[in-house]
Amino acid sequence: MEERICYFNGEYIKESEGKIHISDWALWEGGVYEVARTYDGVPFKLKEHIDRLFNSLRCLPFIKFGLTPEEVTDITLEVLKRNEKYLGPADDCRIIYGVTRGMFFGDPPTGPTFYIYTVPLAAGYKRMAKWYQEGTHMLVVSTRAIPPQCLDAKIKHTNRLCNDLADYEAKRVDPEAFALMLDINGFVTECPRANFFMVKDSKLFTSRLTSCLAGITRQTVLELARELKIESSETDLCVYDLYNADEIMITGTSYAIIPVSRFNGRVMPTPIPGAITGQLQSAFSKKAHYDIVQRVLDYVQTKD
Amino acid sequence: MEERICYFNGEYIKESEGKIHISDWALWEGGVYEVARTYDGVPFKLKEHIDRLFNSLRCLPFIKFGLTPEEVTDITLEVLKRNEKYLGPADDCRIIYGVTRGMFFGDPPTGPTFYIYTVPLAAGYKRMAKWYQEGTHMLVVSTRAIPPQCLDAKIKHTNRLCNDLADYEAKRVDPEAFALMLDINGFVTECPRANFFMVKDSKLFTSRLTSCLAGITRQTVLELARELKIESSETDLCVYDLYNADEIMITGTSYAIIPVSRFNGRVMPTPIPGAITGQLQSAFSKKAHYDIVQRVLDYVQTKD
Amino acid sequence: MEERICYFNGEYIKESEGKIHISDWALWEGGVYEVARTYDGVPFKLKEHIDRLFNSLRCLPFIKFGLTPEEVTDITLEVLKRNEKYLGPADDCRIIYGVTRGMFFGDPPTGPTFYIYTVPLAAGYKRMAKWYQEGTHMLVVSTRAIPPQCLDAKIKHTNRLCNDLADYEAKRVDPEAFALMLDINGFVTECPRANFFMVKDSKLFTSRLTSCLAGITRQTVLELARELKIESSETDLCVYDLYNADEIMITGTSYAIIPVSRFNGRVMPTPIPGAITGQLQSAFSKKAHYDIVQRVLDYVQTKD
Amino acid sequence: MEERICYFNGEYIKESEGKIHISDWALWEGGVYEVARTYDGVPFKLKEHIDRLFNSLRCLPFIKFGLTPEEVTDITLEVLKRNEKYLGPADDCRIIYGVTRGMFFGDPPTGPTFYIYTVPLAAGYKRMAKWYQEGTHMLVVSTRAIPPQCLDAKIKHTNRLCNDLADYEAKRVDPEAFALMLDINGFVTECPRANFFMVKDSKLFTSRLTSCLAGITRQTVLELARELKIESSETDLCVYDLYNADEIMITGTSYAIIPVSRFNGRVMPTPIPGAITGQLQSAFSKKAHYDIVQRVLDYVQTKD
Amino acid sequence: MEERICYFNGEYIKESEGKIHISDWALWEGGVYEVARTYDGVPFKLKEHIDRLFNSLRCLPFIKFGLTPEEVTDITLEVLKRNEKYLGPADDCRIIYGVTRGMFFGDPPTGPTFYIYTVPLAAGYKRMAKWYQEGTHMLVVSTRAIPPQCLDAKIKHTNRLCNDLADYEAKRVDPEAFALMLDINGFVTECPRANFFMVKDSKLFTSRLTSCLAGITRQTVLELARELKIESSETDLCVYDLYNADEIMITGTSYAIIPVSRFNGRVMPTPIPGAITGQLQSAFSKKAHYDIVQRVLDYVQTKD
Amino acid sequence: MEERICYFNGEYIKESEGKIHISDWALWEGGVYEVARTYDGVPFKLKEHIDRLFNSLRCLPFIKFGLTPEEVTDITLEVLKRNEKYLGPADDCRIIYGVTRGMFFGDPPTGPTFYIYTVPLAAGYKRMAKWYQEGTHMLVVSTRAIPPQCLDAKIKHTNRLCNDLADYEAKRVDPEAFALMLDINGFVTECPRANFFMVKDSKLFTSRLTSCLAGITRQTVLELARELKIESSETDLCVYDLYNADEIMITGTSYAIIPVSRFNGRVMPTPIPGAITGQLQSAFSKKAHYDIVQRVLDYVQTKD
Repeated sequence: MEERICYFNGEYIKESEGKIHISDWALWEGGVYEVARTYDGVPFKLKEHIDRLFNSLRCLPFIKFGLTPEEVTDITLEVLKRNEKYLGPADDCRIIYGVTRGMFFGDPPTGPTFYIYTVPLAAGYKRMAKWYQEGTHMLVVSTRAIPPQCLDAKIKHTNRLCNDLADYEAKRVDPEAFALMLDINGFVTECPRANFFMVKDSKLFTSRLTSCLAGITRQTVLELARELKIESSETDLCVYDLYNADEIMITGTSYAIIPVSRFNGRVMPTPIPGAITGQLQSAFSKKAHYDIVQRVLDYVQTKD
Repeated sequence: MEERICYFNGEYIKESEGKIHISDWALWEGGVYEVARTYDGVPFKLKEHIDRLFNSLRCLPFIKFGLTPEEVTDITLEVLKRNEKYLGPADDCRIIYGVTRGMFFGDPPTGPTFYIYTVPLAAGYKRMAKWYQEGTHMLVVSTRAIPPQCLDAKIKHTNRLCNDLADYEAKRVDPEAFALMLDINGFVTECPRANFFMVKDSKLFTSRLTSCLAGITRQTVLELARELKIESSETDLCVYDLYNADEIMITGTSYAIIPVSRFNGRVMPTPIPGAITGQLQSAFSKKAHYDIVQRVLDYVQTKD
Repeated sequence: MEERICYFNGEYIKESEGKIHISDWALWEGGVYEVARTYDGVPFKLKEHIDRLFNSLRCLPFIKFGLTPEEVTDITLEVLKRNEKYLGPADDCRIIYGVTRGMFFGDPPTGPTFYIYTVPLAAGYKRMAKWYQEGTHMLVVSTRAIPPQCLDAKIKHTNRLCNDLADYEAKRVDPEAFALMLDINGFVTECPRANFFMVKDSKLFTSRLTSCLAGITRQTVLELARELKIESSETDLCVYDLYNADEIMITGTSYAIIPVSRFNGRVMPTPIPGAITGQLQSAFSKKAHYDIVQRVLDYVQTKD
Repeated sequence: MEERICYFNGEYIKESEGKIHISDWALWEGGVYEVARTYDGVPFKLKEHIDRLFNSLRCLPFIKFGLTPEEVTDITLEVLKRNEKYLGPADDCRIIYGVTRGMFFGDPPTGPTFYIYTVPLAAGYKRMAKWYQEGTHMLVVSTRAIPPQCLDAKIKHTNRLCNDLADYEAKRVDPEAFALMLDINGFVTECPRANFFMVKDSKLFTSRLTSCLAGITRQTVLELARELKIESSETDLCVYDLYNADEIMITGTSYAIIPVSRFNGRVMPTPIPGAITGQLQSAFSKKAHYDIVQRVLDYVQTKD
Repeated sequence: MEERICYFNGEYIKESEGKIHISDWALWEGGVYEVARTYDGVPFKLKEHIDRLFNSLRCLPFIKFGLTPEEVTDITLEVLKRNEKYLGPADDCRIIYGVTRGMFFGDPPTGPTFYIYTVPLAAGYKRMAKWYQEGTHMLVVSTRAIPPQCLDAKIKHTNRLCNDLADYEAKRVDPEAFALMLDINGFVTECPRANFFMVKDSKLFTSRLTSCLAGITRQTVLELARELKIESSETDLCVYDLYNADEIMITGTSYAIIPVSRFNGRVMPTPIPGAITGQLQSAFSKKAHYDIVQRVLDYVQTKD
Repeated sequence: MEERICYFNGEYIKESEGKIHISDWALWEGGVYEVARTYDGVPFKLKEHIDRLFNSLRCLPFIKFGLTPEEVTDITLEVLKRNEKYLGPADDCRIIYGVTRGMFFGDPPTGPTFYIYTVPLAAGYKRMAKWYQEGTHMLVVSTRAIPPQCLDAKIKHTNRLCNDLADYEAKRVDPEAFALMLDINGFVTECPRANFFMVKDSKLFTSRLTSCLAGITRQTVLELARELKIESSETDLCVYDLYNADEIMITGTSYAIIPVSRFNGRVMPTPIPGAITGQLQSAFSKKAHYDIVQRVLDYVQTKD
């Protein structure tokens, strides 16, 4: 069976051969990564994702990354093209980037390790469909987000064991739950690999970027809110605010916007998706030229 | 040319083939690692290192590591045996362990990724010799250590980009300098991959384990101090204390104990190694049955 | 002499018999409460007060409170009706609610304890009249407000011994003073059972809701400011800002808005009420259909 | 059926009549309490408990408590005597004290509210027996302990809704679990109404008194450790330390010392009670002239 | 040679005789100061500077300063007039104020010490010219800004050794660099004696006034931005934001606005002055009736 | 009348001429100082004081102080000798040192400003006598101590406006009170220009050196405690601990040890000086060859 192609340090190779050596810096200190996706084969907000990759790298000046955003764009498109044929019908893929400092030992130091690979999305559509239809459960956990003076969460780095700890805590309570991490002052930050929004009195709220990733979907939702004349605010939110929210949603690149049906065990006051969640899902679909909910539901139904 | 052997997920393979896939958890969230070393071919405090590996793993219960400490010990010894012939005369090696959660995608999840490899030490003896003879420069940097409620520094994890940031800051001032990180309260923690000690009025001080790794060398030094009747204290230290120290030393697995000759630009008040630093180096050498300073100097002289 | 009626766990009983048992949860851990008031017998913003009671309860999910907001409204009106005859002419009353978890011991657990009672206001009009006419003294104290990650001040809970400590500190300096508590970062929060506003360059400021109660009067003042086209801001304020304020006022349910004539010993630069304080008092009176200042002064004069 | 007697503001009355009015300060801001117990009818460390009550009151100088420790002791003994006959065979009781500031409204202020009542222990022996035999589960929760600059946890106050929040979080995971709260720096503090100890390498550790109650049982355990020549340390502990502990135990007045069999889901490495836990239980029993484990097991067996 | 005149405690004396006694409070605890400047001999925003001096004093009520803002204005103008003749052609001067509590010893206490003196600016034009033309280097340092609950940075006090520490750190890396201090939460505050602005996507950002001085130039830039319809925001900024800024500038009374050409070693993406920096410099020049850049360049060229 | 001599930048001049210029760094950023005293004309612990001056300077490496400790000692003795004749009978003096960075403007920079002067103590004996006999009042204030990562309190710097703020707060309550400052975590630090000790159960406690000056008297008291076999501990203390202390004392160079008779309004439980306070005063007197209490009382009695 043929297999997908990835880009690895200048070459297009079989994905199963995309491997980094065990003495790569990634396995000592970590590196940066980035995740974009396609909708019907077209990368969504690719420029924003590649810009964010460069933003991350700029804060880690010890990584000597020689490429330009244009070159990374070209490679991305080439990777997509080479993998087109391996995508099933109605499937899309994540585009995953990784950059590390290179080899830990050795003099002179090697250049950085850089790779791009793709992961089909449809394998996860069943789980996504459930989220879209039934909503998810969001649970506050004990693990706190790393403060910016230690390592800024706006850098999309791979130093995220706290994500796993948070996830582990939440899943002890409910195997389907998303963990919500607070910062060291007790303000809400983000879920592992996802931002969140809440609605109160028809106004949209999300946390400030002081201790969370500047999600591209998060940014898109803020833009859509402006277009839809929904007042929005990035502010310090407390657990109190989420307990008393009218709607809560989780945003991420793979699924865009999924509604939360329970917060810390409390069932949300209105059926999901709430009015504004629904509006944002529709507006997002329009922007992506892809019905983010229906297409997944259709796909899953076909497979059943 | 033949090459070194590493252990990788149950197999003994060529080190150049010791590679983790680009969709390993390590490249999303990180994992744990461990570094021991041999003295004249004999692993030093191997039990303590393997215990610490298990201590780290215990705090990350989402990593399902199936082996016992005894099994890891056996594999270690086998790896050492297989690589014996590749070590040059008078050379020793680091023993490096890595454990990650396994593959990020895929259902069911794969088991963990686990590897052990060795890195000869002699390639670094020239730099070490300079440290032993001339001491190093220690510089306080802006980057702060991650607090334990986010991710405990006592876990020997690979989420250490802050190490690189700290190192980058210090090396801007002096390319030979070690960075010293403070915690978010302003107390001294550790250097990237190294602990430290200071001496004041013949008493030994090091930071508490609240925001730094429980270094095996650090622990050994504390034990040696007890044997040598040197009073020692683990406490919250400030930059003030280091400015006014009589001696400062840096401890790490590879080089054991190296003296600091300048702190934040200030030349230490006595020639290096200071009296207690020297005593501890000797006692360490006795414990390791290996003169940690002289052997390196001899090696370097031979090569010149 | 007849006495007032209170509601207690489903019954309308004499107020003197409204008592909770000494092994109620309230005397172990605390509970929540709420305070509204009438103006000329009509409850003011009753819906907002009852909503806030439910907001508080939602954050304490271990209290199993079975009633709906509508039921609580009905009980409130019934309590008011039953107590009408006990109110003196021109008097109004506070409406006080309490909810606790029930009995601490016992298996199965009892349901919650819930009560509503009223307290006439006129007994305090003399003190209020003095505040309206002469202003109050506001003093910064040492006791800090509890951070939201421990217990959110937006919950109107009965865990407020810090209020008493703050009050005690302020009254040591001036028996008439209101204490102003800072949060643990040094930002201004609130007074015991009262919010505050300050005016600088004709702009209105109050603290953010990160460490203070979301006072209904506070919210009303913010709404009035919008109607009066007074620019307002909820932000992190420092003691510096209050020292340099043009006007300061204190807001609470019982007295609505009272001017501060001295801050930390400094006499305010303009006579009280300042221009904006006066405007807000008038606008509030209009909204409540009750002249909050004059009615109290009239009442007191009548009694003298 | 006759009922137990309690002390309430100077009188010995039926316990069911021991009630505080709904406008007591306790229901606005809170008060202080204290819990002691008897062993075979004899109060254990009564002096220490009454001293701690006075320590608590001293920090809340706005409570004007007029009695002396001697008077409180006398009342305690009287209460015990009057309730003797209501205790079943082999039963003991808790002695519970409460002090509040008095009535919230009213001029002049009333004096304080002060009560003492007893609660038989045997009703809880079945649950205790299970704890002694099977150990408990300890779980780290999201809610943080209140810092001392807001309200010192060493005051045994009734401002403990955070206890309920913590407990609620833990019981979501395991209905039998004890919650473990961290302080705002991420250090371990205490469980709701209980302290804890851990053992590592035959040394006993507990948290510092910076954010937890100075439990009398905690203090007794520290004294027993000194007598037993077990090295002990009060220090800043992290979740890491508990994950890697050899034994963990929970201490409280009612049950003295119970072993923890699981921490955050991890099964402790040795059967419970661990060696030092067992030693401390025995020593405690000797000090109390009462076998704290066996007596409870015997009682339960008799009842089955 | 004649010399400049200063004002000292009510007298106009030779500047060399402007001295405070070694037992002045300034040498025990510190005092406040203020710096204004002239443009073509006319003081710029003098009212704002004198207002800020009084704002500072208001927060330090133990300094009994008897003068009014009007009196200070009159003295300022008199000092300027008396020193006019000592200014070279095309030169301007700083106007420096100092107020201390008076003598530390002595009973009764003396009144405050108050002085005003001038310092010609042209001596620094060469350095300024370089900054205008080549930009400066901004470097994040380890020293943190003092939190407002200790001593508010909005008070223009002389307790600024942390400035010197920060400056020392930066100049170790680059003798021309400006230090950038973070607050204890890791948010960007200010440079020693200077504020900063950054531009991202044509929007202007500066830090909030929680831990930095309310610079008059900073305030002027915010006003100019409003006039120029440049969107601006005072917010919590992180090092990440500055790494990814399009433009950075430093603002201070002496030089108004200077561009930053390198941040933490990273060369800014566009030539200096960036588009918005240039616009603001022009607008500032118009407001000051003085071309802040060109006049300095002209002066320097003339002197070469 | 003749006047005292001071040392100023290399010269011995009349004290009234000891003045620093208004553009000295001290009036921009601050400097360091030091205070010693004589007992019967003999400087007490002079070496320790001069060592501490050098410790302070070492942390402020931008001050280029050229002298050695021996030179400073010699100058001290010379200053004392020259001022001997101006001291009244039975009087002693403080020895005050100041070091600043030099002139703020000017190129090349001037060297540092350095001065030593003396202040007779007897003028303050009346106040001291009252403290010794009646004890003082200690009051917790709102102003927090500066954290070490901003400016270490162990440096005896002149950045101490927070001292004045604290003092002002305390004296609002009681004009005779000493202010007690907490650190930003709420732990007790020190009083303005004084350390403190408390006694509980015959054990001596003082705060850790994390946020307070390493007072020489504090150090002497710790040494005396060791000699007297009084157990002592440097630890994080809370307001709770002081409320429940058996004795409290304040230590400073001028008066050595004075008892506290009231803490936050609470009268201490035993007459002053408490048993251990008295013991320490006696032991201190023996060490200083001067009865610190009686000599002052005698002096005052003579003068009355």
